[in-house]
Amino acid sequence: MSLSPVLARIDADITAATDRLLDLLRIPSISTDPAYKDACQTAADWLVADLQSIGFDASKRPTPGHPMVVAHYDGPGPHVVFYGHYDVQPVDPIDLWDRDPFDPAIEDTAKGKVIRGRGSSDDKGQLMTFIEACRAWQAEHGTLPCKITIFFEGEEESGSPSLIPFMKENAEELTGDVALICDTGLFGESTPAIVTMLRGLLGEEITITGPSKDLHSGMYGGPAMNPIRVLAEMISRLHDDQGRVTVPDFYDGVPELPDDIARQWRDLGFDAGDFLGEVGLSTPAGEVDRTALEMIWSRPTCEVNGIWGGYTGKGFKTVLPSKAHAKISFRLVGQQDPHKIRENLRAYLTAMLPPDCQIEFSGHGASPASQMEIDHPAFEQARHALSDEWPNAAAYVGCGGSIPIAGYFKTYLGMDAMLIGFGKDDDQIHSPNEKYDLSSFHKGTRSWARILDALSKDA
Amino acid sequence: MSLSPVLARIDADITAATDRLLDLLRIPSISTDPAYKDACQTAADWLVADLQSIGFDASKRPTPGHPMVVAHYDGPGPHVVFYGHYDVQPVDPIDLWDRDPFDPAIEDTAKGKVIRGRGSSDDKGQLMTFIEACRAWQAEHGTLPCKITIFFEGEEESGSPSLIPFMKENAEELTGDVALICDTGLFGESTPAIVTMLRGLLGEEITITGPSKDLHSGMYGGPAMNPIRVLAEMISRLHDDQGRVTVPDFYDGVPELPDDIARQWRDLGFDAGDFLGEVGLSTPAGEVDRTALEMIWSRPTCEVNGIWGGYTGKGFKTVLPSKAHAKISFRLVGQQDPHKIRENLRAYLTAMLPPDCQIEFSGHGASPASQMEIDHPAFEQARHALSDEWPNAAAYVGCGGSIPIAGYFKTYLGMDAMLIGFGKDDDQIHSPNEKYDLSSFHKGTRSWARILDALSKDA
Repeated sequence: MSLSPVLARIDADITAATDRLLDLLRIPSISTDPAYKDACQTAADWLVADLQSIGFDASKRPTPGHPMVVAHYDGPGPHVVFYGHYDVQPVDPIDLWDRDPFDPAIEDTAKGKVIRGRGSSDDKGQLMTFIEACRAWQAEHGTLPCKITIFFEGEEESGSPSLIPFMKENAEELTGDVALICDTGLFGESTPAIVTMLRGLLGEEITITGPSKDLHSGMYGGPAMNPIRVLAEMISRLHDDQGRVTVPDFYDGVPELPDDIARQWRDLGFDAGDFLGEVGLSTPAGEVDRTALEMIWSRPTCEVNGIWGGYTGKGFKTVLPSKAHAKISFRLVGQQDPHKIRENLRAYLTAMLPPDCQIEFSGHGASPASQMEIDHPAFEQARHALSDEWPNAAAYVGCGGSIPIAGYFKTYLGMDAMLIGFGKDDDQIHSPNEKYDLSSFHKGTRSWARILDALSKDA
Repeated sequence: MSLSPVLARIDADITAATDRLLDLLRIPSISTDPAYKDACQTAADWLVADLQSIGFDASKRPTPGHPMVVAHYDGPGPHVVFYGHYDVQPVDPIDLWDRDPFDPAIEDTAKGKVIRGRGSSDDKGQLMTFIEACRAWQAEHGTLPCKITIFFEGEEESGSPSLIPFMKENAEELTGDVALICDTGLFGESTPAIVTMLRGLLGEEITITGPSKDLHSGMYGGPAMNPIRVLAEMISRLHDDQGRVTVPDFYDGVPELPDDIARQWRDLGFDAGDFLGEVGLSTPAGEVDRTALEMIWSRPTCEVNGIWGGYTGKGFKTVLPSKAHAKISFRLVGQQDPHKIRENLRAYLTAMLPPDCQIEFSGHGASPASQMEIDHPAFEQARHALSDEWPNAAAYVGCGGSIPIAGYFKTYLGMDAMLIGFGKDDDQIHSPNEKYDLSSFHKGTRSWARILDALSKDA
């Protein structure tokens, strides 16, 4: 089966494809708000019908929350599992939108045409790139080049409560050779990226108790230990003067970056000055001997996400508080073991406690990093296919945040996942005036056509 | 004029004296709540009438807030100025009171009879001890042994906004040889105390700004400086490992305790274990080479009264905040200069700032310590007079908190002040079920009779 006519079909069909996306965007499938429960059903029904229309065995599958959509096409070649989500974020603050978020439209902007509306980029526009690629293959060749399972979730923006149980219950049906996830972005304006490193996340809330009740700092200041001081001392000791985390054995399992990946990252031309300049900074903090890009993508970090204690209102109250609190989180990489790090952290901080003080811990999350096995031939096939479509060669990149679905595919279904997406930094996902570039939609669709072609050659 | 019949008169009149106090306690003169504005006027009127009834030239004096009461008696001997306040704290939470706070009564308790009601100890019961002593002198001798000015404030519990202007405008009228302030307590159960050292107070609110907006800790954690970490580091560096404050020149003007005062304090039998044990602690923190009593009464301290930044709600939010804040206060002693310390603190913290971060300061209060000139003969006269009344000898003590009025008498009127009061630690001032021991009221009245006698002998 030849790729060229498929690409030509995509080009010819772009207006109709865009109209289909606009249809889907009109459905207000906000998963976190019970008022939109029916809309989530409607969006799932819309997807089932659309997938059936191009030959998929598609069905809406109930969960305790919003339904999943699962669709199968028994083509030749390798079995790929494509993941996206049809639910969207709430639209507040609504008055900052320049149009009704669920009355989407194509708009001309200084940077080209965009599809404006809630979910245009996250994630309806992205998931439709894959469906449109399949549609073009079907239209041109009457079949698809691979065996494909499509798996759409409706609860991604509200914590995915049904996801793991559903994956476990339907493991056989959802398992293929490799997973494709379309919920990420390009690097910059025109460099396609395959995310192969996702940092893990470990959260810990800490409470230090000193005196048994709030005291008057005039009466007790001095001889009574102040828990805010204890907490500040602990936080100040979590990093050394080289910016490294001091928790014992923290760097166990942190790999050095392979040379070829390091080379790809250098070639990306990431500008730390621009990156920090956007947020009013100029000097990279953190590990003194690491680049900003390494620190975000491939190095573990420790951050304090919140701190509170004593009087925090207007004016002054000379209280010596009983308790002080902090929320601390760690981004993890490589083989770092979140459970071991939690244990080590707790022992480390407990050993710092001065007499009479108590420390309590409350754990939040403990997900290890995901590092994809890029030895799997699908990775290089996809990278070359993407490089053929875009002006710049595709790169394997990291992701500072945590995208749990990639880890779940590995953990529960034993599959590596390729995170490939066409969003841009200025898409304003989760914010007012969300948009998706028409070029992202068009070239994204062409990219999937190419990737399916490349993967099918492996068979 | 003989003292003995005055004391006998006080003893004989105790029931009527208590009834008068109960009358005053029935007036709900809560100064901070505008709903009780009229009650404050009523309390002032009550006092003016009572003082006139015992021969004072008394008047209610308007201010922009609640009125002052000023009364003069042109007796022989030294001119003493007595200060108290007729306003009281709010009564919330009202449901924790065992009786109507403004329906006072004498109650029997395991530790003896108490006068229960809002203001019984703070400060209506205390100021009435002085009036009752004057009444007994008048009743017995038809005159008072000293020249006396009485000065009652009605805004002490709401920040004394009118106090300094009133003192300045009426300086000549309010200035005598020595001030007497009855708003403090006994040391323990039965040791009378003259407070001669009051710590000063310097407050500073600090805001650290890192990035220009709140960031995602996955996206920016590492290369972007976290202001909570900067703040924690600063706080951790405000004390050295000996518990001393590290702000440059902080200890300039901090005197060593005179030997005779140190001896008196040792004789008080202060038990640091008991003191800390009350609040769930056992090990004195602070300066390693100082006793707990020194740290509270005669050493300067630095405390963090509040800290906040980032996400402080339930659960986790992986934010890297733009700002972090702390409220820090210093208790000052001796000749420490609050303005110089503020300058030094600001320079010291500013020098700790990492690149890209900003620091803002907002000052709150800057009152120096008050140290009374106990060479003034009135101090030893009063100390002996108190020692004659109580089972234990009177002591010169410090006060960890700040009682601004004593400093104001010195600053604006050039008078030393003797802070003598008969409250007890369990009086629950500012709290539900406030009480004043009937023995405090009775022996307090006798104490003032003795002090007036002793001071008059000097003439």
